[in-house]
Amino acid sequence: MEIAIPLYDRFTALDAVGPYEVLSRLPGARVRFAAVDARPYTTDTGMLTLLAETALADMPHPDVLVVPGGPGTPQALADGRLVGWIAGAHATSRWTTSVCTGSLLLGAAGVLRGLEATSHWLDLDELEHHGAVPSGRRVVEQGKVITSAGVSSGIDMALTLSAHIAGDAVAQAIQLAIEYDPQPPFDAGSLRSAPPGIEQLVRAAVAQRDARS
Amino acid sequence: MEIAIPLYDRFTALDAVGPYEVLSRLPGARVRFAAVDARPYTTDTGMLTLLAETALADMPHPDVLVVPGGPGTPQALADGRLVGWIAGAHATSRWTTSVCTGSLLLGAAGVLRGLEATSHWLDLDELEHHGAVPSGRRVVEQGKVITSAGVSSGIDMALTLSAHIAGDAVAQAIQLAIEYDPQPPFDAGSLRSAPPGIEQLVRAAVAQRDARS
Repeated sequence: MEIAIPLYDRFTALDAVGPYEVLSRLPGARVRFAAVDARPYTTDTGMLTLLAETALADMPHPDVLVVPGGPGTPQALADGRLVGWIAGAHATSRWTTSVCTGSLLLGAAGVLRGLEATSHWLDLDELEHHGAVPSGRRVVEQGKVITSAGVSSGIDMALTLSAHIAGDAVAQAIQLAIEYDPQPPFDAGSLRSAPPGIEQLVRAAVAQRDARS
Repeated sequence: MEIAIPLYDRFTALDAVGPYEVLSRLPGARVRFAAVDARPYTTDTGMLTLLAETALADMPHPDVLVVPGGPGTPQALADGRLVGWIAGAHATSRWTTSVCTGSLLLGAAGVLRGLEATSHWLDLDELEHHGAVPSGRRVVEQGKVITSAGVSSGIDMALTLSAHIAGDAVAQAIQLAIEYDPQPPFDAGSLRSAPPGIEQLVRAAVAQRDARS
């Protein structure tokens, strides 16, 4: 099974690496990091670089695509080669998935019209521009299309997908292998649970990041 | 604040990228992926390559070190340049941390003598060879030394560390920014919770991987 994770400049690392860590453990799976050009891509922080070893043109029909998000998504949306590849890959894929603002790229490729979908909470409303119905759920399944919420949600999405592909026992073995028994020290990971003032801290940090870029 | 994440061949990607995704968001933090030689390093699956842009020799005294684990740990334990660097960095660090079998590297560097520590559940007993007391907890704090359990636990560890470094509100804002509101589809992430037979599936997959390598 060929699994493509397309990269682009200023993607968010965990969006891509979380699902990779799960899906690469599926029996017979081959995960390929791909991009418009096969070259190194640097993440949103500027502190980490991953290699895209495959050109998108050389991998037109993966079985599974996992599209990550990040602050680079708006620029990526304007790249017809990436968006066109997503549309073409989706036409023949078994599963088409996204993490975080990767769903906006699915949307631009016409994948989400009339479907419920999710994204990072900061960008959820943007989905409406692509004809999707925003959902507050963490993992949203619509037939072969699965979108997930911000950054870390890709781990949950990939375990859900693993169960569909290989059965519950294999997915559970992957969960145990990566010891995914989450125990965050705070309950602040969603707008529902975050204490007062935390949302504003995040918005201020994002504004500062965007001002720098 | 300088944060070093040392890489080596056949490390596990999420061990490194989980803490990176959290700690890179600390105000004033600079995360550097470092290694004996500054070059690309390929992960345990052979499907992903990250760049170590800094040589360990050029970063002898980071404020924080985060040592990842993976199937490459046994080979890394035999590399005196890496183990020696950990010992030297620990001598002056503010925080010395590990994920998964990264704790065995801390142990080899003499960091864990007499301390409680943890690792991936498959390798927990190995800690005794380094004078540490194995603990079943997910994140184990002993003064400035923090070890965490398998692979995904580095996210929890890094949030705990973020709170120590920058306060609870900043750690909570990072948690909300990465939308870390875990909802795994199964409760199988620890030996305590995994259904019968799942541990054996993991052990069989590991044996198969080790036979190939």
